[in-house]
Amino acid sequence: MTPTVPPTVPPAVAAARTLIEPVLRRAVARLDPITARVARYHLGWADPAGRPLPAGGKALRPALAVLSARAAGGNVERCLPAAAAVELVHAFSLLHDDIMDGDRMRRHRPAAWTVFGRSETILAGDALLTLAGEILLEPEPSGLVEAARSLSLATRSLIAGQGLDLEFERRDDVSLDECLRMSTQKTGSLLACACSIGALAVGAPAPLVSGLAGFGAETGLAFQLADDLLGVWGSPEATGKPVLSDLRARKKTLPVVAALTSRTPAGDRLARLLARSEPLSEADLRDAARLIDEAGGRAWAETEAKHRLDVAERHLSDAEMPAEVRAEFLDIALFITSRDH
Amino acid sequence: MTPTVPPTVPPAVAAARTLIEPVLRRAVARLDPITARVARYHLGWADPAGRPLPAGGKALRPALAVLSARAAGGNVERCLPAAAAVELVHAFSLLHDDIMDGDRMRRHRPAAWTVFGRSETILAGDALLTLAGEILLEPEPSGLVEAARSLSLATRSLIAGQGLDLEFERRDDVSLDECLRMSTQKTGSLLACACSIGALAVGAPAPLVSGLAGFGAETGLAFQLADDLLGVWGSPEATGKPVLSDLRARKKTLPVVAALTSRTPAGDRLARLLARSEPLSEADLRDAARLIDEAGGRAWAETEAKHRLDVAERHLSDAEMPAEVRAEFLDIALFITSRDH
Repeated sequence: MTPTVPPTVPPAVAAARTLIEPVLRRAVARLDPITARVARYHLGWADPAGRPLPAGGKALRPALAVLSARAAGGNVERCLPAAAAVELVHAFSLLHDDIMDGDRMRRHRPAAWTVFGRSETILAGDALLTLAGEILLEPEPSGLVEAARSLSLATRSLIAGQGLDLEFERRDDVSLDECLRMSTQKTGSLLACACSIGALAVGAPAPLVSGLAGFGAETGLAFQLADDLLGVWGSPEATGKPVLSDLRARKKTLPVVAALTSRTPAGDRLARLLARSEPLSEADLRDAARLIDEAGGRAWAETEAKHRLDVAERHLSDAEMPAEVRAEFLDIALFITSRDH
Repeated sequence: MTPTVPPTVPPAVAAARTLIEPVLRRAVARLDPITARVARYHLGWADPAGRPLPAGGKALRPALAVLSARAAGGNVERCLPAAAAVELVHAFSLLHDDIMDGDRMRRHRPAAWTVFGRSETILAGDALLTLAGEILLEPEPSGLVEAARSLSLATRSLIAGQGLDLEFERRDDVSLDECLRMSTQKTGSLLACACSIGALAVGAPAPLVSGLAGFGAETGLAFQLADDLLGVWGSPEATGKPVLSDLRARKKTLPVVAALTSRTPAGDRLARLLARSEPLSEADLRDAARLIDEAGGRAWAETEAKHRLDVAERHLSDAEMPAEVRAEFLDIALFITSRDH
């Protein structure tokens, strides 16, 4: 895989956004006014007062879904409901996760629950999840039934991953394997679905569907590793969150668990630091970041991310599809695993 | 409609529970352990520690779904996934509603969120909602696609109703019409779906489906009125909640709004009482109950409930179905609108 980092949003993502945004907007327009208001804000279409904003989010997952339909040589129109449904499930999970995790910032803006309240935001997530199931089954469901099933399974996997994440916050004996499994469920499953649901929707053969899902799952894990690294060593401007917020919340991210389970003196010191009952000072947080690095957690995460991207690329080269579709998939994989935005 | 109140659980409900419980248990067994634990407790299958309990809940909605398949002369087996899915959506909404409403008791037991925490309970609700969509589309989806669509629409309507309910708590100018619309969405829509989804699943003609949905919607409103009345004048043993808890939380239930909008001296006194910023004493709560009665809110709700049951019965007599199925539907309608349990 080439080490060059695409500097801007890949064209496939921009193109998919143009295709998908009208579908998403029509879907969200069906919602009751209370949940629609929260959804429009969360999707970046409106400010807290409901005034329209010029541009929405990036629609990475729909872009992958559209590519997967093109990989299968199918009609792109037919996969748009599935692509929009994936984005709705993604939006649902972010709305609920921010409440559960107490995260107050999302994409450089106050998280929806801090603006509209917890109850309204739980409800808005529920509404988007339901809407996803709904738009998949209309107007003509052949192929989309399989897509709906795939999305349900991915959603349950995502929920199971978030459940483990909550559990891990209370445990101090999380193994690296457990942590990888959690990330695979929480991040990998929906990306695997995004990368294969368009193909499912247009009736692609099983080997193509599973190859694309494999590509998505591995890319998802690479993305999670990159995200965890950014959470410690990224700038707040890039992440849209306060500096070192993951460490402040003592989240068991992958580099942290790699350091904690490294059996190194630095790893042991990190464990003692994170086990302290009092809040961590700025100096503590900087110490923690240094100890993760010293214990090898940073290097492990960087190597593992590269390895996952290699495996993802192999899935892609083994699957039969037009060369330009493969190139666009790769472009997106590189983009989201090296994102500096 | 006969005024006789069936003293025990109608046979159709008991029979449906036997049919549906294995389907529900198989579905819940697919969940990840974290959300499954919350779901099992909420469904009455386990105690907080996860130890099995002898019996689960009543499965009223699945009973209605099974009846609706029989009304259409269809194979009951085919509608079981749809019947179980309705119960899963019901369970999801109760889990989330109790968090939003701050209700600490549910069916005479501590609400799930007080046992397992808010985050875990949000997640368990999400998991049950997803599971509902999933089981509907397997193993052979013809007919079930229509059922899945109907359930999605009902779920969104239920969510919209809960949104209004949250909004009404902050408003003091809720009209009776608005309140009826909210109850129709929050309670009527899922019962309308329960009463027609089995028929949809077995491919019934449209007039039967819409007649059954009309019966369910009106029964749902009658049920909500009965429930609101019980919330004020029912015994805590019957409701499983602390005495006068709806009034304590200043919920805008139907009899309360009827009293507030009655333009009577008692209604005005009630408005002033509920507008006070300090918590209501036991004496205040008893006063409030008396004022609702004096302002005609209780009588209005009783009359309206009877009227809705009459309309429900008319829907039922206009729809073509075997006589014994019609009788069983009626039996359940009477049971749930006069419940003293």
